[in-house]
Amino acid sequence: MNFSTIIGLFAAAGTTISFVPQAIKTIRTKNTSSISLGMYTLFSLGTLLWLIYGITDKNLPVALANGVTLIFACIILIYKLRYK
Amino acid sequence: MNFSTIIGLFAAAGTTISFVPQAIKTIRTKNTSSISLGMYTLFSLGTLLWLIYGITDKNLPVALANGVTLIFACIILIYKLRYK
Repeated sequence: MNFSTIIGLFAAAGTTISFVPQAIKTIRTKNTSSISLGMYTLFSLGTLLWLIYGITDKNLPVALANGVTLIFACIILIYKLRYK
Repeated sequence: MNFSTIIGLFAAAGTTISFVPQAIKTIRTKNTSSISLGMYTLFSLGTLLWLIYGITDKNLPVALANGVTLIFACIILIYKLRYK
């Protein structure tokens, strides 16, 4: 495994795991006042496309990282729609 | 350009552009109460690693998309630190 791949794995872990504290905060507080609906709509759609890209391109790390991120992004989006 | 690449480009555009409405909302309202500090700290770090990965792996789309996303993520992070 070369340097670039190791950096890529840490990058994927960082951006994927980052949505966990946001999802926890949103579920706990039900406060979504400063969260942008536009962001989570576009971001969820973009992550779904990354997941499709990962599957069609047979790129397991991309598919896996974005599959997990999509779950958290959708949770936050649902809370934003439910608790405006 | 095959189907997979086109999906990948739309995916990159979606997840990158998604941070624009959040940055605009945050700058306008200065309200960051429901935004997670943990998320933007981890996400900015992850995006920086993606940028490094894009550069070391000579992958221009990854470097470009994450360079742009990093700017917006840092703006939101700075506002979160400044207006708690």
